[in-house]
Amino acid sequence: MYYKSNSRNHCPSKINTYNVNARFIAPNPPCSFNPNSVYPTIDSTAYIGTFSSIIGDVTIQKNVFIASNVSIRADEGSPFYIGSDTNIQDGVILHGLANRSVKNNNKEYSIYIGKHVSCAHGCIIHGPCKIGNNVFIGFNAIVFNAIIGDDCYISTNALVTDGVIIGPNRFIPYGAIIDTQEKADRLIPVPKEKSEFAQEVLHVNAEFPCAYSLMFGSLKCKCGLACNSRTI
Amino acid sequence: MYYKSNSRNHCPSKINTYNVNARFIAPNPPCSFNPNSVYPTIDSTAYIGTFSSIIGDVTIQKNVFIASNVSIRADEGSPFYIGSDTNIQDGVILHGLANRSVKNNNKEYSIYIGKHVSCAHGCIIHGPCKIGNNVFIGFNAIVFNAIIGDDCYISTNALVTDGVIIGPNRFIPYGAIIDTQEKADRLIPVPKEKSEFAQEVLHVNAEFPCAYSLMFGSLKCKCGLACNSRTI
Amino acid sequence: MYYKSNSRNHCPSKINTYNVNARFIAPNPPCSFNPNSVYPTIDSTAYIGTFSSIIGDVTIQKNVFIASNVSIRADEGSPFYIGSDTNIQDGVILHGLANRSVKNNNKEYSIYIGKHVSCAHGCIIHGPCKIGNNVFIGFNAIVFNAIIGDDCYISTNALVTDGVIIGPNRFIPYGAIIDTQEKADRLIPVPKEKSEFAQEVLHVNAEFPCAYSLMFGSLKCKCGLACNSRTI
Repeated sequence: MYYKSNSRNHCPSKINTYNVNARFIAPNPPCSFNPNSVYPTIDSTAYIGTFSSIIGDVTIQKNVFIASNVSIRADEGSPFYIGSDTNIQDGVILHGLANRSVKNNNKEYSIYIGKHVSCAHGCIIHGPCKIGNNVFIGFNAIVFNAIIGDDCYISTNALVTDGVIIGPNRFIPYGAIIDTQEKADRLIPVPKEKSEFAQEVLHVNAEFPCAYSLMFGSLKCKCGLACNSRTI
Repeated sequence: MYYKSNSRNHCPSKINTYNVNARFIAPNPPCSFNPNSVYPTIDSTAYIGTFSSIIGDVTIQKNVFIASNVSIRADEGSPFYIGSDTNIQDGVILHGLANRSVKNNNKEYSIYIGKHVSCAHGCIIHGPCKIGNNVFIGFNAIVFNAIIGDDCYISTNALVTDGVIIGPNRFIPYGAIIDTQEKADRLIPVPKEKSEFAQEVLHVNAEFPCAYSLMFGSLKCKCGLACNSRTI
Repeated sequence: MYYKSNSRNHCPSKINTYNVNARFIAPNPPCSFNPNSVYPTIDSTAYIGTFSSIIGDVTIQKNVFIASNVSIRADEGSPFYIGSDTNIQDGVILHGLANRSVKNNNKEYSIYIGKHVSCAHGCIIHGPCKIGNNVFIGFNAIVFNAIIGDDCYISTNALVTDGVIIGPNRFIPYGAIIDTQEKADRLIPVPKEKSEFAQEVLHVNAEFPCAYSLMFGSLKCKCGLACNSRTI
């Protein structure tokens, strides 16, 4: 056994305390519903933050930023795809149901996330689901069993679920529960100030993958500053 | 001091980056309201996921699956009990108030969770509370100071609190706030499709403890595949 | 590259499993919007819990308790200040927008949190924001772009945002969305039982920093028990 479990009132001789930039990138364990063990495919320009884990058949494209305490776990629904220049903020969870999928270009995914997407702190993206390009997903929002069109803005605490399809450029207000297609069809276009906010978030996060890799990874830029176009 | 704290603009000589399957299983520190330091009791068939911590008098029964970034912290309210074949998904938090308890078979607990329970991603279970058998607790749902009967289904974002007692087989809709007994008493039975969904979740999670232990733990099955009945 | 990323179906020879009290305390990486890399300033009586990270210009005062899986990330908005005797529970996230600030005593902050504040499990505090003294912030509550007066009580799942200013001693109910000043101005005073609950939470958390440091840190009290006034 890898930990002591049978003795009560057992005080371990010494538990060491470390200051460490740890993450866990590993293949999924084989299961009856997902028998192939696949190691994640992570572009070398992406950054994986501290205490985050990436498990299984997950493709992470160029310049993706993944913050701290993120769990991306393709052990049940699989594969996952995360497009370039997308950011996944602290505490975000990606997981998917077995045997359920969405399509992108005739390939099946448990979770497909386009490029230039912001998944803000604490949101849950649960497959089957597809998120288009340039989508903003707010704090603690939940997307599960849904298709989200390009340029949508999902506000804080919203829930989008039960098979709804959200057209492009739709705005989902704070805490809204979009669980029928009728509700989905009545959503208004994204207000201009929300689009601008989403663009600012992307702009800021574009610098992070390189800046963090420079600081904590073993990859080094020659420029000595954060940049988006590394040549190494 | 175990970290440098007084110098600003201090760049540590080198912070190492590791790919590591780390978890923290430890006794609670003695406090005036909880003076006994107790090491968790974890069945050898349970799996504790990456970057999760289990602190204090926590009993974890057979084939429990605990995913990533989970905090189970029996340092204030104590003890906690987690029944067999229960799953605790990513980002879930278990904690309890001091000096408040629930009873199960005449024994007092801060948190008692039965068997075959699913605690979905991001939910918070805060003692005092008791969760019966076969309960499903949805994404980001919160149960605090409540008793949940067997076979209940608590949907995404629901809040159950303020001392309510939920009878068996009750269904709590998305985002519902059940904070009076009057509201609790008006809940409808669990719809058939929700019961079936909860069963599927249990079915899938039954394979994970062994599959993950095989892949990342030091316990090995002889079968070479995930199984629920290990003989080691 | 610091991890293998190009081979699919690659099974790493061995990923080690550790029982470890890890946290990550580090300077922010320099970026165009936040070019100075600053190491956190953490009082030696504070405790930083397992799998939590503190990045950048963050000042943490005396006897602050930070639980597990917390992310305090001053890489964009900066600096952050956390007053003495404040507790930050499991899964809490602190982050701030670039180029937006609040003032305290004529100094600008991305996030300013006073003393004797409780940030309960799963809440998100996003700058620009200022939290007064003796504030209680409930489970999964969100404060973003807001000023919260002293002695306020923000209940579970509430959202306070869009530039509102909450006067002192205001009570925000479960799940309330306070996104206009008009709503903010209609809030009632904090009920007595809620104030008392907030005081109990502070009382309990006052023991944790020392108790945890004794158990897991390298600092040792001479008294051998948890105490708030260490002389080392």
